[in-house]
Amino acid sequence: MHIGFLGLGNMGAPMARNLLRAGHQLTVFDLSEAAVAGLVEAGATAAASPAALARTDVELIVSMLPAAAHVKSVYLGADGLLAHVRPGVLLIDSSTIDPLTAREVAAAARAHDNPMLDAPVSGGTGGAAAGTLTFMVGGSAEDFERGRPVLAAMGRNIVHCGGAGNGQVAKVANNLLLGISMLGVAEAMSLGVALGMDPTVLAGIINTSSGRCWSSDTYNPFPGVLENAPASRGYSGGFGTDLMLKDLGLASEAARQVRQPVFLGALAQQLYQAFSAQGNGALDFSAIINLYRKDAQA
Amino acid sequence: MHIGFLGLGNMGAPMARNLLRAGHQLTVFDLSEAAVAGLVEAGATAAASPAALARTDVELIVSMLPAAAHVKSVYLGADGLLAHVRPGVLLIDSSTIDPLTAREVAAAARAHDNPMLDAPVSGGTGGAAAGTLTFMVGGSAEDFERGRPVLAAMGRNIVHCGGAGNGQVAKVANNLLLGISMLGVAEAMSLGVALGMDPTVLAGIINTSSGRCWSSDTYNPFPGVLENAPASRGYSGGFGTDLMLKDLGLASEAARQVRQPVFLGALAQQLYQAFSAQGNGALDFSAIINLYRKDAQA
Amino acid sequence: MHIGFLGLGNMGAPMARNLLRAGHQLTVFDLSEAAVAGLVEAGATAAASPAALARTDVELIVSMLPAAAHVKSVYLGADGLLAHVRPGVLLIDSSTIDPLTAREVAAAARAHDNPMLDAPVSGGTGGAAAGTLTFMVGGSAEDFERGRPVLAAMGRNIVHCGGAGNGQVAKVANNLLLGISMLGVAEAMSLGVALGMDPTVLAGIINTSSGRCWSSDTYNPFPGVLENAPASRGYSGGFGTDLMLKDLGLASEAARQVRQPVFLGALAQQLYQAFSAQGNGALDFSAIINLYRKDAQA
Amino acid sequence: MHIGFLGLGNMGAPMARNLLRAGHQLTVFDLSEAAVAGLVEAGATAAASPAALARTDVELIVSMLPAAAHVKSVYLGADGLLAHVRPGVLLIDSSTIDPLTAREVAAAARAHDNPMLDAPVSGGTGGAAAGTLTFMVGGSAEDFERGRPVLAAMGRNIVHCGGAGNGQVAKVANNLLLGISMLGVAEAMSLGVALGMDPTVLAGIINTSSGRCWSSDTYNPFPGVLENAPASRGYSGGFGTDLMLKDLGLASEAARQVRQPVFLGALAQQLYQAFSAQGNGALDFSAIINLYRKDAQA
Repeated sequence: MHIGFLGLGNMGAPMARNLLRAGHQLTVFDLSEAAVAGLVEAGATAAASPAALARTDVELIVSMLPAAAHVKSVYLGADGLLAHVRPGVLLIDSSTIDPLTAREVAAAARAHDNPMLDAPVSGGTGGAAAGTLTFMVGGSAEDFERGRPVLAAMGRNIVHCGGAGNGQVAKVANNLLLGISMLGVAEAMSLGVALGMDPTVLAGIINTSSGRCWSSDTYNPFPGVLENAPASRGYSGGFGTDLMLKDLGLASEAARQVRQPVFLGALAQQLYQAFSAQGNGALDFSAIINLYRKDAQA
Repeated sequence: MHIGFLGLGNMGAPMARNLLRAGHQLTVFDLSEAAVAGLVEAGATAAASPAALARTDVELIVSMLPAAAHVKSVYLGADGLLAHVRPGVLLIDSSTIDPLTAREVAAAARAHDNPMLDAPVSGGTGGAAAGTLTFMVGGSAEDFERGRPVLAAMGRNIVHCGGAGNGQVAKVANNLLLGISMLGVAEAMSLGVALGMDPTVLAGIINTSSGRCWSSDTYNPFPGVLENAPASRGYSGGFGTDLMLKDLGLASEAARQVRQPVFLGALAQQLYQAFSAQGNGALDFSAIINLYRKDAQA
Repeated sequence: MHIGFLGLGNMGAPMARNLLRAGHQLTVFDLSEAAVAGLVEAGATAAASPAALARTDVELIVSMLPAAAHVKSVYLGADGLLAHVRPGVLLIDSSTIDPLTAREVAAAARAHDNPMLDAPVSGGTGGAAAGTLTFMVGGSAEDFERGRPVLAAMGRNIVHCGGAGNGQVAKVANNLLLGISMLGVAEAMSLGVALGMDPTVLAGIINTSSGRCWSSDTYNPFPGVLENAPASRGYSGGFGTDLMLKDLGLASEAARQVRQPVFLGALAQQLYQAFSAQGNGALDFSAIINLYRKDAQA
Repeated sequence: MHIGFLGLGNMGAPMARNLLRAGHQLTVFDLSEAAVAGLVEAGATAAASPAALARTDVELIVSMLPAAAHVKSVYLGADGLLAHVRPGVLLIDSSTIDPLTAREVAAAARAHDNPMLDAPVSGGTGGAAAGTLTFMVGGSAEDFERGRPVLAAMGRNIVHCGGAGNGQVAKVANNLLLGISMLGVAEAMSLGVALGMDPTVLAGIINTSSGRCWSSDTYNPFPGVLENAPASRGYSGGFGTDLMLKDLGLASEAARQVRQPVFLGALAQQLYQAFSAQGNGALDFSAIINLYRKDAQA
C-alpha cells in the first residue's frame, strides 16, 4: 500500500521504518531535513510539504506529531492535509492530544469525506523500534478494520476503544491512573521503609495484596526491588517525567472541559511539575519517589 | 494447645471459632456477655477479665481489638495481660493499630519475657469466617515459626514482614496504596465515561495496560463492570468506607511521626472523610466513585 | 475623544455607558444586535464589524471579551482590528485572559505600530455600573499615562503593574490567592463551628489575628457573620463560582506554561469544579463553604 | 496573689517573669533545674514536684507545657495537680493542645471543684518577653473574669472565646487558616514573579485587593518586599516551620475527631512536612515559599 507519514521524530521515525519493512511504499514529510533523509535512505520518498504529500496517490496517511497545535495546523491549516487530500483516503493520527481536539479534527475530516482514526500509542521508543506498540484506536468499527493491518505492522496490541476521540480518551484515562498509582506506590514504599521495612519484602506483600498494581509489580520505583525497572538503573530510559507531565496536563484540561473533578490527578500533576522544575524532567517518571525519600535527597 | 482469645467482635468471633474447629482448647474474654456466650456455646471457656485469662495455663494469647487505646489498656494496664501472664507465653495481637504503638507494646512484652507478634489481617469478615485471612506478621523469625501453625488455623496466607511492628507497617502501607489506587480508578473511570467511553471497554483497556491494579481488575468501582464487585450490588458488603478512613488515619499519623510526607494519602483521607460525613461510612469504600459521578448523584 | 468599544456584555455595556457619560464619542460593536441597540439609544454609533470599527477615525479602542479565543480572533483574525486599524491608535483590552496570550497580542500590535495595554478589571457588574472598577494595567509607562484618563472614566483605581501582560499577571495572581483564602476561611470556620464555637466570635478573633484576610473580614462565607456579605443573602450576587473557576483555570494554565507548581491552587480549582458540577456555578464563590458544612447540606 | 507556674521553657520562663514583675508571689516547677534556678534568682520559690506545688496555698496555677501528653500527665497523673490541689484554685493551661483533650482535662478539674481555663497564646517568644501576648481563652464567663487580671500581666489582648476548650479551638482554627494563607501567598507571589512581575509591585496590588491578608501585608514571604518580615532576614526568628507543622497536626487531628474535611489544611500539613524533612524545620514558616521558587533553590 502507498502510505503517507508525517512526523519523523523519536517515535515516528522507527514507526515509519516498520511500515517500510512490512513492504509498504512510503512518502514522508518532516520539518527536519535530517529526519527525512534518514527515511529516504531506508527507501521512502520525500514530500516537500503536507500539501504535496496529500496530493500524491497515497491511500492512507499516518501522522505522529508533538501536540494538538501541530495536529490542527497539519490537518486544518490553509495549506494542510484536508485542503488537498483525495476523498476516501484514511487518516490515522497517532499523536497524543486532547480528546476534544481529536474529535474536532475527525469531524472536519468526515466533512471532507475522509475517514479518520485517532490512534495514540503506548510502549515508548523501545516499542516503536521493536514494532510492539499498543494502539488505542477511536473511530468507526469499519474504519478500524481498514486501518488495523497497517497499525499491526507497527504494534502488537491494536485495541478498538469506540468512536472518534476514544483512543485519546483511553490513553488519557489510563495515564491519569498510572501517574496517580506511581505516586501511591512511592508514598507506600517510602512510608514503609521509613517505618523500618525492607523494600523488597514490602513490595512482595503489596504485590499479592489489594495494593497490587503495575507500578508496584512491574515498574517498582524503589531501587533494587526489580532488577529490570528504571529504578535499578538510575531512572534512565523508560517513560520520561515530562511526558507524564504532558499527559496529566491533557487529563486535567479534558476534565476541565467536561467539568469533571480529578482531585488526585490535579495534585499529581503539580508534584510531577515540581519534580520537573527541579531539573528532573528527563528522568523516568518513577523517579518521582525521590520527592519522598530523605535518604535519596542526600 | 490451650489458647486465650480476647476480643470477640465481627472479626474476632469467627477467628476464635476457627481455632476451636482446629481442635484447640480456648479461654475467651470480651466485654460483651453475648459475644462470650456465643463462643462458650461453641466449646470455649469464659474468663472474667484479661487478668483472669492471663492467669490460666494458656500457652498463647490472641487479641483482636478495635484500636490502639484498647490494645494499650489490655496489655499494659494495671490489671492487664502483662501484669499477670506467665513468662514465655506467646502474645499475638491481630488488631490493626499504628506501628509505633505495636512496637511499644512488644517491647513491654519482651521486658516481661513474653515473645510477641503483631499480626493484623486482611480479608474482612468473610475471610475471618472462611479461615482464609491474610496475616501480616511482625516479630522475630523464631516467634513467627512458633505462631504460624495457630495463625494457619485462621488464615491461608501467613506472611512474615520482619521485626516487631512490621506487620502493622505492611498493612498500613498496603492500605494507603489501596485507598489511593481506588481514587485513581474512580477518577480515570469517571473521566473516561464523562468523555464518552463505555466503562467496560475502558476497564478492559486499563486492565491490560499500565493503569492495571487490583482496584480496577478485581474490585472495579463502576457499577456493572465486574459482576461480583460491591459496585454491582449497591456497594453493600466489602470493606467499609469508615474502615478505609481509619486505616488512612493510621497511615497519615504514622507518617507524621516519622516526618514522611504522604501528599496523595492525606488528600485521600480527606475525600473519604467528606464521603463518610455525607452519611456513606457504611458503604463499601469503592462507593467513593460517587463523589465524582454526576449521574450517580441524581 | 472618539473611542471604539467592542464587547457589550454584562461588563462591557455599563463600561461603555460610562464613557458616553464622560463626554466621549463612541463607536461600538457586538455580535448581539440588542446589545448594540442599547448603546446606540444612549448615544453611541454602531459599527458593522471589528474591521469597520477599526477603519473609523477612533483614537483609542477598548475591548471587553469573554476569553482568549475571542481576543485572538478580534485582534489577530484575517478581518480583525490589527489588519484595519491606523497606526498609533491605542488599544486597551480589558478581557480577563492568560498573560501569555495577552503578550502575544500586544507584540502583534506593536508590530503594527499600535501601542497596547492589557487592563483586566475587578469589581464585578456593580463596579462596572458605578464606575468604580479597579483596572490592573500592563504596558509601557507612557502608554499607561495615555490610557489612564479613559480608564478613569470607568474605574476608580487604575494601577500600573509593569510591562505588557502584567495586568493579567496581577489579576491571575490575586485571584489565585483569593480562591485559596476563601477555602482556607471555609475550612477554619467550619472546623471551629464543628468544634463548638460561635461563628461570629470566631470570625472576630481571626480578623484581629494572623488569619485575617479579605475573605474573612469583608466577605465572610459563614451566613450571618457579615450582614452585607453574599453569605447572608443566600449567596446571590457577588462573584460567581464559575468565574472563580475560570480564573483558577487561567492560573493553573499559566503556571503550567512557566513550569511553576501551584499545589493549593490546583486543589482549589478541583474543589470549585466539584461544587460547580453539583449545580452551584451561579452562586457566589463563597458558597463553597457548603462543601464543608454538614448542617448546610441538609 | 500567690500563683503557681509549671513549665519554664522558652515561652513559660518570660511569662513567669512578667508575673513576678507585676508583683505576684510565684511558686514554680520545671523538670530543668537550670530553668527553675533562673526564676528563683528573679524572686520565685521552687517546688519539688507538681504535687508539692499544688499543696502550697497558691490561689491560681498557670501551666505552659509542650503537648497534650504533658498536660494530661501534669493534671491527671496519679501524682498530678488534681490529686493534690485545693478545691477552688483556678487552673489556667496556656499550652497549645487539641480542644478535646483540653475539654477532658477541664471536666476532670470541674469534678474536683477546680475551675479551669484553656488559654493558648499567640505572639511568640518576643511577645512572651514583652508581655504583649494574645490569650485565646475558653471557660465560663465568671472564670474568665477571675483569670483576666493575671493574664493581663502577661499579655495585651485577652479574648474570651466561649466555653471550655474554645481557646484551643480559636487557636487551631486561626493557625489552620494562617498555614493555608501563607501557602496561598507563596503560590501567588511565585507565580507572579515567574510570569515577570516585580514582587513589590505585585504585593502592593494584592494588599489593596481581594487577596489581601496578614501573610501578604504584614508577613510577606518574598524577600525584600517587607523590610521587617523574616523573609528579609533569611527567615530567622519568627514562627518556626515545625511549630506551624505541630499546629496543622492539631487541626487535622481535631478535624478527624469531628469528621470534618479540611482538604487544603491536610495538603498544607504535607507541604510543611516535606519542607521540614528537607532540614528547614527551624526556619520561619514563611520560608515555605522556597518550595516554589526555582531561583531560591540554587
